[in-house]
Amino acid sequence: MNAFPPPGAKADLEEGVRLTPRFDRDGLVACVTIDARDKAVLMLAWMNAEALRLTIDTGVAHYWSRSRNQLWRKGDTSGQTQKVVAMRTDCDQDAILIEVEPGGDGGACHTGRRSCFYRRVEKDARGAHLVFG
Amino acid sequence: MNAFPPPGAKADLEEGVRLTPRFDRDGLVACVTIDARDKAVLMLAWMNAEALRLTIDTGVAHYWSRSRNQLWRKGDTSGQTQKVVAMRTDCDQDAILIEVEPGGDGGACHTGRRSCFYRRVEKDARGAHLVFG
Repeated sequence: MNAFPPPGAKADLEEGVRLTPRFDRDGLVACVTIDARDKAVLMLAWMNAEALRLTIDTGVAHYWSRSRNQLWRKGDTSGQTQKVVAMRTDCDQDAILIEVEPGGDGGACHTGRRSCFYRRVEKDARGAHLVFG
Repeated sequence: MNAFPPPGAKADLEEGVRLTPRFDRDGLVACVTIDARDKAVLMLAWMNAEALRLTIDTGVAHYWSRSRNQLWRKGDTSGQTQKVVAMRTDCDQDAILIEVEPGGDGGACHTGRRSCFYRRVEKDARGAHLVFG
């Protein structure tokens, strides 16, 4: 039973109290994951209805892997589990925000880093480039 | 001149210093926007190549509106401008994170709130519902 109610009118979507996610045509919503401790943004991932339902029901983060095309309980292979301590949705309910307590090595990124956003975009005369840290 | 170099191999994508965004089949990457002051997540929006290029070149946030299907310089109608003080990308370069200084009334949400994530998802015996604040 993964189904959520269909989105209603704008007023209900934005000012209502029903969770009616607006999944895109691939059946996904974007999920921003932040560390409950210091609110640092750890990663941006995707949830389909099943992943969102499982995350709500189990209290641990589930995502949909667009590259592997499969449901993904975070940490199953990496050990980088995420216990969800809070969940939010945005005005038009096409995005989810979760605050998590990272398990395992404390990281969220498959490269071993704490956050996936480990590079800054800097601009110089030649254009944009990336800087670590 | 909006073009970015095409994504390279995994090692280059993840450990390289070239910004090579992986736009989806609609030509978009997800963008998480946080407040530079306290790192609060303000919104989740979308950028196409032109919006990303303009954001880099002008230092003010540009997005692609999926609902209006048009480029959108944040604040043009709302006054809620966003001066970009830092930009990051993630491991596989399909997401952008920007830290902004909000202008106008200090809000980011079209409903007038500071953040679009103004409702928590709570679970009770009847299922999930939304709580303001």
